[in-house]
Amino acid sequence: MTVTTTERFETDAPALLALDWGTSSLRAYLLDSKGETAVRREAPWGILHLPRPAAEGGFDDALEAVAGDWLTRWPGLPVLAGGMVGSAQGWREAPYVHCPADLSALAGQLACVTARSGATVHIVPGVLLPGRSDSHGNRLHPDVMRGEEVQIAGALSAHPEWAREVCMVLPGTHSKWAWVERGVLTHFATSMAGELFAVLRQHSILGRLMPASGAVEQDPSAFLRGVDAGYHAAPGQLITRLFGVRSLGLTGELQPQALPDYLSGLLIGSELAAMLRGSEVAANTPLVLVGTPELTQRYQRAMQVAGREPEAVLDNTAPQGLWKIAGLAGLVNLQGAKA
Amino acid sequence: MTVTTTERFETDAPALLALDWGTSSLRAYLLDSKGETAVRREAPWGILHLPRPAAEGGFDDALEAVAGDWLTRWPGLPVLAGGMVGSAQGWREAPYVHCPADLSALAGQLACVTARSGATVHIVPGVLLPGRSDSHGNRLHPDVMRGEEVQIAGALSAHPEWAREVCMVLPGTHSKWAWVERGVLTHFATSMAGELFAVLRQHSILGRLMPASGAVEQDPSAFLRGVDAGYHAAPGQLITRLFGVRSLGLTGELQPQALPDYLSGLLIGSELAAMLRGSEVAANTPLVLVGTPELTQRYQRAMQVAGREPEAVLDNTAPQGLWKIAGLAGLVNLQGAKA
Repeated sequence: MTVTTTERFETDAPALLALDWGTSSLRAYLLDSKGETAVRREAPWGILHLPRPAAEGGFDDALEAVAGDWLTRWPGLPVLAGGMVGSAQGWREAPYVHCPADLSALAGQLACVTARSGATVHIVPGVLLPGRSDSHGNRLHPDVMRGEEVQIAGALSAHPEWAREVCMVLPGTHSKWAWVERGVLTHFATSMAGELFAVLRQHSILGRLMPASGAVEQDPSAFLRGVDAGYHAAPGQLITRLFGVRSLGLTGELQPQALPDYLSGLLIGSELAAMLRGSEVAANTPLVLVGTPELTQRYQRAMQVAGREPEAVLDNTAPQGLWKIAGLAGLVNLQGAKA
Repeated sequence: MTVTTTERFETDAPALLALDWGTSSLRAYLLDSKGETAVRREAPWGILHLPRPAAEGGFDDALEAVAGDWLTRWPGLPVLAGGMVGSAQGWREAPYVHCPADLSALAGQLACVTARSGATVHIVPGVLLPGRSDSHGNRLHPDVMRGEEVQIAGALSAHPEWAREVCMVLPGTHSKWAWVERGVLTHFATSMAGELFAVLRQHSILGRLMPASGAVEQDPSAFLRGVDAGYHAAPGQLITRLFGVRSLGLTGELQPQALPDYLSGLLIGSELAAMLRGSEVAANTPLVLVGTPELTQRYQRAMQVAGREPEAVLDNTAPQGLWKIAGLAGLVNLQGAKA
């Protein structure tokens, strides 16, 4: 368990225990009365990796291991969790809020579960974009997010001026691009680029010519070449350009250590084409990148190929988002004291 | 080992031992003096699944197990092999012939290896399409095929009228679309649709909502819906539509058993877009499907979404292709007797 602490509760009690509880990890933040993170703890107990099966109390075990001492010391401390913990495979399902959705819709539909310790754990709902037709009459599939809505809330909370119009880009295993207008999340789209990279490298013929392990980022020019190939591909051509990862390796045009970068670029370039070449994004909609620096830096470089520069690049904004939603839900007083 | 036999060499000797030797299987055909298949044997000894490691004589073992009795009975029987057996991981590398390539180029560059039995095994080269720029100045990756050139030779041999202009479509793990003009293979493209289907179903989150096993083909309407979504997607949008396989399942819009069909359709539809929506294929170029009936039927149905009907649908044409190339190489007399 990783602990980052700037302990300062000698006299004041904390205002909120905020949990960013995803598939592979659980992050706990103890927030002070101004919503600032005082202590941060992280454990690998994502909802699919609990210390015990869920049916045997795995969620309680994980919560107690990470924050049991806090809950004992400050009984009545409000607890708000976001992420996959609210999915059908989570602790308690928090049904989706439908797009268009604003923050008060999220705050107004929290799910609740009572922990073994007696604490009430509030859970932020995910967001559903129902299936619909695009402007050409094509039927579009529905889309879902869970956890990213908290990140978006955090970014908007830190920069209220973006609420007028912004496209939030959240790279990850399943990247989300989310459009906000006048404070409302109007629509969003999910890209499989991250997971495609992982499964193609590990399980497809494309991984065979690559070095056995090692980070991407060996060859920035191969990355940009991949972005270019992905971004400018004609409709459907990702499926043929992917085979280029193999043929460029077979013919020696790219060296083995350059191939992971080329593949990563190809997939991210394709994602940028899907999101930026279509009619969905006006060329002047500001783009804001939110995520781990390793990923946001890659996306920032890729965006240059598309002639775009992000307005800002933010690291994890979950604590701010949970604080904002807790305030709107009346769990904390955004002006200072606990509600 | 599967053996299909219509034994008829009581008096006449066979003219050619034709080997279709790929990654996962070895098919041996004993052809009579008219190039007709008299006996067919199949074993699971593809080049990556030899009975012993290659360095310890695995290729010889496989050949002897499948055709040793024939080579003993008819010493001097010409042997011609096509497929991955000529790759760098094969028995003997047969360097690529470059596009534009015709059949005599293939026949003129056979590689040879002497088997333990003393027989000379001739191996058909693969074909390389060098990297180049398209009409918009975009750089295109090189492409390679090995084995499909034999299928193409077989189809053209059976239907010489197609040599004027045809696009041969060979569905598989790595589908090939190959354009022939005036008897010359001018260019081709490889699609990863088949392998993508397998790795996404087995190793990605998209497989989670699908039934544990069972064939595709449960739900033809889900297949066509997938084809439609893949064929009409805007540039790059395969990467977002793939996530639709999950969200359509999560929201109950598609039932679990329909999801493999939808995914298969999405990928094949994307392949059709890459090959047919681009400027590469004139709308009046005849399309010929070559492959196993299970796959060619799927592609034929998918082509209807693109408003295309194949000129013909052929099963495996490797024996005819090897016969034709053997004739051009002087290994057999195409008019009847052994050369």
